[in-house]
Amino acid sequence: MESRIEKQMDFLREIDKLKQIGRQSYLTDGGRKENDAEHSWHLAMCALVLREYMPEPVDVARTVEMVLAHDLVEIRAGDAYAYDAQAQAAQREKETKAAEELFGILPEDQKRYLKDLWEEFEACESREARFARVLDNCQPLLLDDASGGKSWREHGIRKEQVYERNGRVREWAPEIWDYMERLIQKHVELGNLL
Amino acid sequence: MESRIEKQMDFLREIDKLKQIGRQSYLTDGGRKENDAEHSWHLAMCALVLREYMPEPVDVARTVEMVLAHDLVEIRAGDAYAYDAQAQAAQREKETKAAEELFGILPEDQKRYLKDLWEEFEACESREARFARVLDNCQPLLLDDASGGKSWREHGIRKEQVYERNGRVREWAPEIWDYMERLIQKHVELGNLL
Repeated sequence: MESRIEKQMDFLREIDKLKQIGRQSYLTDGGRKENDAEHSWHLAMCALVLREYMPEPVDVARTVEMVLAHDLVEIRAGDAYAYDAQAQAAQREKETKAAEELFGILPEDQKRYLKDLWEEFEACESREARFARVLDNCQPLLLDDASGGKSWREHGIRKEQVYERNGRVREWAPEIWDYMERLIQKHVELGNLL
Repeated sequence: MESRIEKQMDFLREIDKLKQIGRQSYLTDGGRKENDAEHSWHLAMCALVLREYMPEPVDVARTVEMVLAHDLVEIRAGDAYAYDAQAQAAQREKETKAAEELFGILPEDQKRYLKDLWEEFEACESREARFARVLDNCQPLLLDDASGGKSWREHGIRKEQVYERNGRVREWAPEIWDYMERLIQKHVELGNLL
């Protein structure tokens, strides 16, 4: 039988694999694509810097924990591109199984804690989860903007898709949305979004 | 004049560069070396999972913020390998200048906040900073262990160097130290540490 600390260290070694899960957005210099660990770190920094833009009080520490852990299930389920509807539909089932297995490496109390955190993010009902979603929409846009819309052009993304995916930011964090909308508009004009 | 949100977004774009700052430890599969953004994310996850091992109460949210931001200055100052004493000595001055410039992209209040956070980490006097240091010592060891001591062998690292660098963990988080010491001992026996 493994001790408590051994289980915890096993988990911390296992999640190293998040650094190998590729995403579709390019880094700001356009040189290579981002991975999930980098993305999760960047979201957490966004939470610290942009916390003032949620109209109602938010437990920022909880949002930070949520964004740090929100993509862990992709270690076993892989990443589904945000604009690939078919992949998105199959993803949910794979991720639920992945959460059970991955968080199950931890002692029972911590498994429960991480599963709750992930389910709260997925349900997107609490203020903390909504702030996390706002950031998860905003950060890729910052990268896509800085890298000249490279990822959008590769996938032939249409303006309507970006609006549909990011539209709820308008309601949840209007000032962040205003900034995002200016970026989207710029790339429509540049022809990077169809 | 840039607006407040423009400054904040500029900063969030600028710190994307942390993903390009290489470190010496290999990922657990030994395939490539880790970068600073991945490392910072991993430390934050370690904080969430290992919080129970600090003997006195710690504000974990503050430690998380600290580890997320602790390497940002390396965007401008570069990384100094932990076992390169000469590089370490020159590093402090470079980093102070880097902090001023990098955090200076933000509005004044947030510049102050991140500088305080970084200085608290550097001073290593608060419980939160000590917890951050414990994690910053423990996580590379997990990677070096999993990757078969590859980085140690490349640099011809001696056991005494590892003890010297990590020794304070013994005092600050004895149970984590016990685990770490077993790993170190294993790699001495395997000949991966001289």
